Amino acid sequence: MTIQTIPFSNLISIDRTSAIPLFRQLANALLTLIRNGKIKPGHRLPSSREMAAMIKLNRTTVIAAYDELRSQGWLEVFGKKGIFISSQLPVINPKSFKPEKRFTPKGLSQSDFYRQINFDRPPYREIKPFHLLINDGYPDSRITPIDSLFNRYKALLSKADLHSPLMTGNVAGSLSLRRELADFLSKTRALNIETDNVLVSHGAQLAIYIAASMVLKAGSTVIVADMNYILADKLFEQLGARLVKVKVDENGIDVDAIEEICSRCLPDLLYIIPHHHHPTTVTLSAERRMKLVDIIRRYQLPVIEDDYDYDFHYNNSPILPLASADHNGYVLYVGSISKTLAPTIRLGYLVGDADFIRQASRLKQLMEIRGDVLFEESVAYLFTTGEFQRHLRRSVKLYRQRRDRFCELLKTSLGDLIQFTIPQGGMAVWIVFPQDYSISELSKRLYAKGVYLNDGSLYRYSDTINGIRVGFASLNDAEMEKFATALAQVK
Amino acid sequence: MTIQTIPFSNLISIDRTSAIPLFRQLANALLTLIRNGKIKPGHRLPSSREMAAMIKLNRTTVIAAYDELRSQGWLEVFGKKGIFISSQLPVINPKSFKPEKRFTPKGLSQSDFYRQINFDRPPYREIKPFHLLINDGYPDSRITPIDSLFNRYKALLSKADLHSPLMTGNVAGSLSLRRELADFLSKTRALNIETDNVLVSHGAQLAIYIAASMVLKAGSTVIVADMNYILADKLFEQLGARLVKVKVDENGIDVDAIEEICSRCLPDLLYIIPHHHHPTTVTLSAERRMKLVDIIRRYQLPVIEDDYDYDFHYNNSPILPLASADHNGYVLYVGSISKTLAPTIRLGYLVGDADFIRQASRLKQLMEIRGDVLFEESVAYLFTTGEFQRHLRRSVKLYRQRRDRFCELLKTSLGDLIQFTIPQGGMAVWIVFPQDYSISELSKRLYAKGVYLNDGSLYRYSDTINGIRVGFASLNDAEMEKFATALAQVK
Repeated sequence: MTIQTIPFSNLISIDRTSAIPLFRQLANALLTLIRNGKIKPGHRLPSSREMAAMIKLNRTTVIAAYDELRSQGWLEVFGKKGIFISSQLPVINPKSFKPEKRFTPKGLSQSDFYRQINFDRPPYREIKPFHLLINDGYPDSRITPIDSLFNRYKALLSKADLHSPLMTGNVAGSLSLRRELADFLSKTRALNIETDNVLVSHGAQLAIYIAASMVLKAGSTVIVADMNYILADKLFEQLGARLVKVKVDENGIDVDAIEEICSRCLPDLLYIIPHHHHPTTVTLSAERRMKLVDIIRRYQLPVIEDDYDYDFHYNNSPILPLASADHNGYVLYVGSISKTLAPTIRLGYLVGDADFIRQASRLKQLMEIRGDVLFEESVAYLFTTGEFQRHLRRSVKLYRQRRDRFCELLKTSLGDLIQFTIPQGGMAVWIVFPQDYSISELSKRLYAKGVYLNDGSLYRYSDTINGIRVGFASLNDAEMEKFATALAQVK
Repeated sequence: MTIQTIPFSNLISIDRTSAIPLFRQLANALLTLIRNGKIKPGHRLPSSREMAAMIKLNRTTVIAAYDELRSQGWLEVFGKKGIFISSQLPVINPKSFKPEKRFTPKGLSQSDFYRQINFDRPPYREIKPFHLLINDGYPDSRITPIDSLFNRYKALLSKADLHSPLMTGNVAGSLSLRRELADFLSKTRALNIETDNVLVSHGAQLAIYIAASMVLKAGSTVIVADMNYILADKLFEQLGARLVKVKVDENGIDVDAIEEICSRCLPDLLYIIPHHHHPTTVTLSAERRMKLVDIIRRYQLPVIEDDYDYDFHYNNSPILPLASADHNGYVLYVGSISKTLAPTIRLGYLVGDADFIRQASRLKQLMEIRGDVLFEESVAYLFTTGEFQRHLRRSVKLYRQRRDRFCELLKTSLGDLIQFTIPQGGMAVWIVFPQDYSISELSKRLYAKGVYLNDGSLYRYSDTINGIRVGFASLNDAEMEKFATALAQVK
């Protein structure tokens, strides 16, 4: 049975301008016809000469395509009889299949095989390259010591006999970086830790995800602040946990409310940002910190302490983290290197009991095998040479100046329209507008002026909250002026 | 009530060689005493003069430390009366606390608050820098076009007005890289896809983790090959799924067995590596591919097709992936960029239906907010200029030569001791030893010769399997010779 009546010239389209060799294009086109059941097992193909004439290709191209398909098992050749679609292939009736009714293992029908994730950041409008983007608290990557990082990276990459050992065995991250972090965190935060208490992750968010995955299961409960860093809330919900919300005031989260919840039914986790709470930037007071540590100890309450911008505190030294107190391993401490280097450089860390870190590293390995260990080693080298610490000091000084200037400009341009407290640290100001003011409309008017500001819907936790987080650290003087001028014009 | 009788000189230790300012050290030391309940709320501290004398520090240092603690709310000053531990702080009785009995919400006691991850790769022995590391299939990062990547990265990093838009809005990854990948995958794999079908992830492993997290829940079932890529098996188990194992022979996985399972009780997922199956490197035959696509369509069976080294096929062109056939969105396609650039450069991708990718991007955002978008943009630029494709062609040519040379050397050095098939592609050879041969002992003897080879326990799926995956792609001639010589000496 031959198939010479099939109109191959209509079914096969060849693009002579493509980078893909012609014989590959032909082979792929024939394969698609075979797989879709348009040409069936046992059918004879036109000879290479006939096919070449039909589809206007060189005969050697057709021969190469046939050879390719034969070597892959799609075609078979029987001496003089010709070239056939392999009779071993199953017969497929194109498009005629009726899907079986799909059932889940529990016998319930489901409309789709994957879950819907109940979360979306507000869609960004198209951001043009000439737009000034106002973020919600990024460092300025124009001052990142990128040359030092890349030079070290290149030196490591070229030495296979050196980097091979670096790439293996340390599923918790580069050994040098973990050692440097243990030292840095001990000195700056009075954490009493060693290398094996530190896991390096692809960003602080992943550190939270790993820590939460270790502690939570479907049906768990998590105490969070109201309002809270939204990506943390959504992450906990994604893992099947239920949120128990506790109010935040100017002294931070209400720790009496936390105790009250614990005394009724102990939750599985507390997530807290004691420094520069997100989004409102408030800092947990000394009194509440002590009470909270006491609660953690008495109830053995597991805690994720997210201390993402500890290093950026301007008025006095930052308050030591909860993790620096005696807590019997119940405080899992998360921090960010991205906040010091650049938002695109994704590096964070998770600090915990050595056994916890060992278990968490196994989970990390299932998620990403390893990080970019050479990059981690290069960052470790910045610590070793002191360049990281110098860069941090320079950044803190610069961002303190920018905070002051930014807050002045905010007052000048928006005046009584807004309320804000000058933040003690961090990279953003929490600005509150009157209830009837539309931040979304403000955002639209700014956009027309070439300034991109999100529409505030991320922070719309309740009807009584009408605020927005506005980052200052990444803006130089000219950019701040541009933003302030635009604000004054369109407010 | 004063506490001048407290022996501060014994309790506070100051390191004069530390980079931490002396006043910070003192403040932190005092804070620790306060938080541990050693000095209690309402107690008076020694005057700065007395304290300075006691602990042999300059008085201005003590004043600075007191000021610091006062500004944080730990101390209060009452005019001439002196400096007191803030009476607002709660009273903590150090070490005397009795933890409440810990209960889970379900009323069951549990010994620890976090889960144990039932997986560990065999511990690596200490790898000395001068050791030759034999991996299980890495590319050679000495030929990575790192200069082009870094130059582009630096150019992007310095342009804040350009990179700001690049950093935002694309939770599925850099728009340029997704566009380039859609084009590259369409041309090389006949996938009929656009930009919005592609998600870029921090390595192919994360792509598998995200895809599996979207599909699986506790109690789900997953069909996997027996044997299989162990990090995938462990990942599915970690997500609460049960593995259903199907045999692999020289033509790949047994698709009749898959159909038999589907007809009994439809599983939630099939995970398959049709090209260069891990660890055995076999390729799924044409006949089985067609049958499998038919099964996927008829049963609407969700599939993760892990095609991590499609681009590295040496004897003929690679067989088009399952994802290139009509499958109604049920085949989720995973690939790796790390395999082409360098094992430490963690970049992979996930291809699926546009809605699936949208949902998966939200999950990805909860895990890592974003990738290193500037790095992704830099890789995209390699595609745009054609350097990625040229590098790939050079690599395939080089690795084909290395495969041939490596297989010759294996025969010469190990001869009849081992069985292996020359792999059609990929970066590793699957070597099978006799049942009574100890790979672990071989590994030890090689280590003494300066060669690091894992002990094979990773692949010990059953008592009848005694094999090891040995990578050749990263080894130059001299390194291969060194390995072969060592093998011949200690076999």
